Amino acid sequence: MTIDKTHIDALIKIAGDKGYTIDPKSIKPHTEEPRGKFFGKTLLVLYPDSTEMVSDLVKYCYQHNIKIVPQGGITGLVGGTIPDQSGNEVVISLKRMNKVREKDLLNNTMTLESGVILSDAHDIAASMNAIMPMHIASEGSAMIGGNISSNAGGINVLRYGNMREFVLGLEVVLPNGDIWNGLTGLRKDNTGYDLKQLFIGAEGTLGIITAATLKIYPDHKQKNTSFVAIPDPDAAVTLLSLAREVSGDSLIAFEILPRIGLDFTIEHMSGCREPLEAKYDWYMIMECATSLSSDLLDLETVMERILETAMEQGLVLDGVVPKNEKEARELWNLREFMSEAQKFEGGSIKHDVAVPVSKIPEFLEKGTELVKAEIPGIRPVPFGHIGDGNIHFNLSQPTDMEKSEYLAKWEDINHKVHELVVSLGGSISAEHGIGTLKADELAHFKPDVDLNTMKSIKDALDPKNIMNPGRILKV
Amino acid sequence: MTIDKTHIDALIKIAGDKGYTIDPKSIKPHTEEPRGKFFGKTLLVLYPDSTEMVSDLVKYCYQHNIKIVPQGGITGLVGGTIPDQSGNEVVISLKRMNKVREKDLLNNTMTLESGVILSDAHDIAASMNAIMPMHIASEGSAMIGGNISSNAGGINVLRYGNMREFVLGLEVVLPNGDIWNGLTGLRKDNTGYDLKQLFIGAEGTLGIITAATLKIYPDHKQKNTSFVAIPDPDAAVTLLSLAREVSGDSLIAFEILPRIGLDFTIEHMSGCREPLEAKYDWYMIMECATSLSSDLLDLETVMERILETAMEQGLVLDGVVPKNEKEARELWNLREFMSEAQKFEGGSIKHDVAVPVSKIPEFLEKGTELVKAEIPGIRPVPFGHIGDGNIHFNLSQPTDMEKSEYLAKWEDINHKVHELVVSLGGSISAEHGIGTLKADELAHFKPDVDLNTMKSIKDALDPKNIMNPGRILKV
Repeated sequence: MTIDKTHIDALIKIAGDKGYTIDPKSIKPHTEEPRGKFFGKTLLVLYPDSTEMVSDLVKYCYQHNIKIVPQGGITGLVGGTIPDQSGNEVVISLKRMNKVREKDLLNNTMTLESGVILSDAHDIAASMNAIMPMHIASEGSAMIGGNISSNAGGINVLRYGNMREFVLGLEVVLPNGDIWNGLTGLRKDNTGYDLKQLFIGAEGTLGIITAATLKIYPDHKQKNTSFVAIPDPDAAVTLLSLAREVSGDSLIAFEILPRIGLDFTIEHMSGCREPLEAKYDWYMIMECATSLSSDLLDLETVMERILETAMEQGLVLDGVVPKNEKEARELWNLREFMSEAQKFEGGSIKHDVAVPVSKIPEFLEKGTELVKAEIPGIRPVPFGHIGDGNIHFNLSQPTDMEKSEYLAKWEDINHKVHELVVSLGGSISAEHGIGTLKADELAHFKPDVDLNTMKSIKDALDPKNIMNPGRILKV
Repeated sequence: MTIDKTHIDALIKIAGDKGYTIDPKSIKPHTEEPRGKFFGKTLLVLYPDSTEMVSDLVKYCYQHNIKIVPQGGITGLVGGTIPDQSGNEVVISLKRMNKVREKDLLNNTMTLESGVILSDAHDIAASMNAIMPMHIASEGSAMIGGNISSNAGGINVLRYGNMREFVLGLEVVLPNGDIWNGLTGLRKDNTGYDLKQLFIGAEGTLGIITAATLKIYPDHKQKNTSFVAIPDPDAAVTLLSLAREVSGDSLIAFEILPRIGLDFTIEHMSGCREPLEAKYDWYMIMECATSLSSDLLDLETVMERILETAMEQGLVLDGVVPKNEKEARELWNLREFMSEAQKFEGGSIKHDVAVPVSKIPEFLEKGTELVKAEIPGIRPVPFGHIGDGNIHFNLSQPTDMEKSEYLAKWEDINHKVHELVVSLGGSISAEHGIGTLKADELAHFKPDVDLNTMKSIKDALDPKNIMNPGRILKV
């Protein structure tokens, strides 16, 4: 179905003067992903400012078989938010739908439209003396609707869960244009199928999320961090159980870093320096936080207890506890700049995978062996959310190889690593989703029963396949 | 479709010698719910002992359009697990599928078959030095599969969530007999639609859950309770926010009790006595628990801090902190025997409803007014999980009315209370589900968009409508 001028005019008429762009320069940012891996085309970007307008636009598209790409902050990494090359997909950006619908202090919820930027959602929670502990690298531009559609993860999943766990209610415009009002603030509601779960993580393929009621949590009165050297990934997994138990579940982040990643970060990123006197093979960064006041629970003592017990058990070899917020920030930078630092070392083939926490050591050992056998000289930089079993298994190229030659092996290496991951009961996409990037891999690795069930749900809700078609499920 | 002897023989052949009963005496318990509200008929109860056998049975039923009622511990309260009056529905009981498939200490998960009794699941978690904090009155006979199918709630939802939150992976036999193996122990997995969410809370209408991978949590090293008098439900809601914040989210239960409920319990239940010197209109029972050791956090001091602050703010009028486990049990009995105690006061019309926590005072006030206007002399005994907005709005009959005359008003009163609940953004079934009991109410109160979406999902997964038909969605 080619989109022609009649349709463009009709959609513009629904959207109103401020509700669209057809200017190629304004359109351009809507057709590119930040990592530069995806570029698409579109003739029309729509900016509805109300749920009713989204509904009217979708109804028109449904009637005329026009394909829609819903868009939030365009921070996705798998091509799920970028229109395809045909130019026939219309983009519906939610960025003008950024109102706060409700703050309910006593219910500990806030109802936000899906165009609210995640860091603004943090501020809205703060204005209620609360927190919304969903933190990802792109929080300054990622939008709530996209966070929900991609079931965002990040560093505090360990304690607070994925984005799914924050969502109590949703408002969604379905592929036929109907508005589903599921905006409840209820903690318990067993009245039939829990429809909101379908849309969370569906990457916009089952409808357009327009608003959400989200849980908020008591503010942290104390927070502290430690940066430790560990003998190996086995120790990390044991340390996790220890830290969770000793800390009374106040452990909110637990991240692993390899030595080579530290080397890259210290060498390439300004302000990063060696955290400990000696050098070690593996490091962990741990963070605890609590809303308990310090006269009831001294979080520093908790962290000391974790570290003492861990050193006695040989799980921790050395460590540092930052004295202030600035020092803590410096240590976190070693983790957070790691992906950026890799860019200075040539090409990086990336994986966003998860395995059961208990299988992480096996995955790291076998994964490293596997890629080294494939490409001698390859430099694995595995790091990430070991507390959730989620490793960003990023692989820097050999120093003596052409970047393009190396990157040409991306899909082949991905596939082999994914085979290993699946054999360990793991996931080929822990937090980034499938989009178009991994749609082939999904089709390959998911059993037919899974794919058929997903397709039957897609068919049931989007029989004309107009809503972000081809993302997740290949057409 | 009438079930004839050929089909019965064929299913028996699949199930094997120990895998069935056609004996009316053995069948009887499979056709009655404990509350005595539902009685059905069946000619055949099957007891498969493996997923493959469940699959073979379902395949046969699918092929021959035989309707199936999946059954766990038969503790449901809404008729969802009882065969209908036709005698044509076959019961598949999961009680022989009660194996522990895996204990993964480092991943903090256990994989259980769905016939495992909930209290046995508690013991299995305990054998791993952990807890599975899902506690409901029927835990001695309710089974894991039913807990998941009904998305069980209970008293610790406040801190740990509904059953849904415990489930990381599921194995399900689909209505066509296909086995869906979604038994992962992953904390992060964004590879398409999160299929397990569909089956959780679907009351067996979309497939038969055969096994689940469940989260476990660090064991509680300390736990304490307080029983307090409060001026009114408004105070309860404010106290909830205060207690959550002061306790560092270690508040695990927060239940409200009305004076009349105490009167009933103390009068009718043995061992129950007046907890405080004076009498008050409303009471709360609060429980905190933590895996922190007492030298790090003294939970008694935490509870004292909550109570002191609450008394200063006029939220608490009086209270008692039990000195030992026995005293704590006595106080909890006042709450847990409340439903039983009502039986001595004649008929009770029950509601299992939820509203946003902030709306509880309004609901209680308007709900009480409403039912008193309908039936002068009616005695409301609202109690329950106020921390989740979930009130068991149970109404004892006037003392001067015939029980049967009173109970004849059940549906009418339900309907009017549900109208109020829905007007407050609430749920007509917070934790018990829909089953057949509330299928009419659901059809009335759910908007068409919701019902149509649910039906399209049911059609997509169970096109022949053989899986627990008529439950949740009317045929």
